[in-house]
Amino acid sequence: MQLEPEAIDALLSRWPVARLVTLGADGSPAPVPIVFARSGAALFSPIDGKPKRGTELARERNLRADARVALLLDHYDDDWERLWWLRVDGRATLVPASAHPQALDALRAKYPQYTRVPLTSGEPRLLRIEIERVSSWRASDRAGI
Amino acid sequence: MQLEPEAIDALLSRWPVARLVTLGADGSPAPVPIVFARSGAALFSPIDGKPKRGTELARERNLRADARVALLLDHYDDDWERLWWLRVDGRATLVPASAHPQALDALRAKYPQYTRVPLTSGEPRLLRIEIERVSSWRASDRAGI
Repeated sequence: MQLEPEAIDALLSRWPVARLVTLGADGSPAPVPIVFARSGAALFSPIDGKPKRGTELARERNLRADARVALLLDHYDDDWERLWWLRVDGRATLVPASAHPQALDALRAKYPQYTRVPLTSGEPRLLRIEIERVSSWRASDRAGI
Repeated sequence: MQLEPEAIDALLSRWPVARLVTLGADGSPAPVPIVFARSGAALFSPIDGKPKRGTELARERNLRADARVALLLDHYDDDWERLWWLRVDGRATLVPASAHPQALDALRAKYPQYTRVPLTSGEPRLLRIEIERVSSWRASDRAGI
């Protein structure tokens, strides 16, 4: 059972977290949780000021070699009738934040946390994810969307 | 900042949900949420009786061509000081459930839902994930583990 188009639209606009998968140099999958916001037809995720493990993020290095990504939004619940997931397949590129002021506005509007956490660090950049395909599943009409 | 070894051990035993990433025929990443349990040194996920979209799961088809997988456990919180993630890189194979009675016991012990949902469907099989590498990140000492 798939999600309704209205639910997909609402989740892509409002769901707070997604798992982004890029591909490592050897083609192995590299998943990481991200925040994101929709602006126009694309999804944007900041290379933001949250404390990270390294200077250059693996996702940046990976995307320079292979732009293919998958994004997974989902809900876990002890009541398995309420499970759902939403998957986006697409391509991601790093873009200068200054070229996407509406995406910055969308991120700030969605995440009040960015009043305290820097939205960008170093050279301000955003990950721009172009949606190529959306697929979904829900366990029942009672899915916890 | 990484997770403490004790936290990693507890999360691999007790966290209820993970996102499994396999690789599609063209090498693109295919993420899906799974339930799992630890038994011995491996993680096991059932090809279970929850209603699915198709007869053969994409993860089964993918794993026959490329056994490499990544597994992501994470916690999202509006308080970003509480964020963490735990990533497992490994290899997965489909194994007959009958060869892993302890894994079936571990799944039933972890998920009381399996008193109502069939733990396996059709030919009983489990996904066996061999852990090759664990990496982690947490935003602060206050990570919500």
